[in-house]
Amino acid sequence: MTAAIDFYFDFSSPYGFIGSEKIEALAARHGRKVAWHPVLLGVVFKQTGSVPLTQVPLKGDYSKRDFARSARFHGVTDFRMPTVFPISTQAPARIVVWLQRTNPEMTARVLHALYRAFFVDDVDISNPDRAAAIAGQCGVDATAARAAIDDPAIKDALRLENDKAIAAGVFGSPFVIVDGEPFWGVDRFEQVERWLATGGW
Amino acid sequence: MTAAIDFYFDFSSPYGFIGSEKIEALAARHGRKVAWHPVLLGVVFKQTGSVPLTQVPLKGDYSKRDFARSARFHGVTDFRMPTVFPISTQAPARIVVWLQRTNPEMTARVLHALYRAFFVDDVDISNPDRAAAIAGQCGVDATAARAAIDDPAIKDALRLENDKAIAAGVFGSPFVIVDGEPFWGVDRFEQVERWLATGGW
Repeated sequence: MTAAIDFYFDFSSPYGFIGSEKIEALAARHGRKVAWHPVLLGVVFKQTGSVPLTQVPLKGDYSKRDFARSARFHGVTDFRMPTVFPISTQAPARIVVWLQRTNPEMTARVLHALYRAFFVDDVDISNPDRAAAIAGQCGVDATAARAAIDDPAIKDALRLENDKAIAAGVFGSPFVIVDGEPFWGVDRFEQVERWLATGGW
Repeated sequence: MTAAIDFYFDFSSPYGFIGSEKIEALAARHGRKVAWHPVLLGVVFKQTGSVPLTQVPLKGDYSKRDFARSARFHGVTDFRMPTVFPISTQAPARIVVWLQRTNPEMTARVLHALYRAFFVDDVDISNPDRAAAIAGQCGVDATAARAAIDDPAIKDALRLENDKAIAAGVFGSPFVIVDGEPFWGVDRFEQVERWLATGGW
């Protein structure tokens, strides 16, 4: 029996989106499941002094080009850069945290739908009503999802998850931890794959 | 007849070192040569507001682990983290710029020797005497190499090269440009390879 691999992501992260589309198949090739961890990079960036890639001189223009090119490279051909970017991701992250506590078997389905709404259909999922509506389209009670976004217990739960992620060394998205070994970026998935196959090198 | 691919690197960059060990074979598989471009990331970082990876909270510890793991992953098995890091790289960069103008056929050999001195043998190549001595071990006139490091014309030439790199959008190391398409990082070499094979996707 082998442990799930931990996948940390921010809903506003293009590389996180690409990773989210690849990670389950990658894990399954090695008999693993995925443990999903939504994080709020804005909070993490305060610790690392980072700013969103697209706002950095020189890096910003490159990044936008690389997002689209990397998505196509990894076979995520319907990626498109959202009109509003970056966004706050409390609303979708809280929906995931809420589902994990109340309806865990719906987590992955709703998470993929939220990510695809943002990075394929250009829906601003920072909007709580829209985020809840997407959960509703997946078969979840949309009213309950909307209420969860404002529920102090869910807010606290997400804050705690975020603190635990930072304590685990997470500082970017996607971030994968395999049996204690950390990998940052969808461009480390080849290393993740080899690590799963060989246990290290 | 196809153009050389441009490889930009800083001598203090571990990923630049890994890339420098791989890029010629990669280029050769597609009938290309490599045009080497030493840059001073310290100057570039002033424009992007970046700091060396190892000095960023959380990212720093991860980076040191990833340098070594990525080196092994890419088959550069004798990589070791230098005792003094990061370093100023004016001395080795000026030697390269000087050779490109006076003895171009020695450029690659000396460049590899300088990089390997720093990242394999733990020699502080920021020291002009040591950098010149390494060039000397490759068969270059060490006294002339040492003089080149203090030559105002060579200093100006490196400054100009650095300005041209920034103007071309370079902000990190390694940075590869293939027929106008920019790729940042040794973790983009797979994309570089596919770009060379297909002309884009």
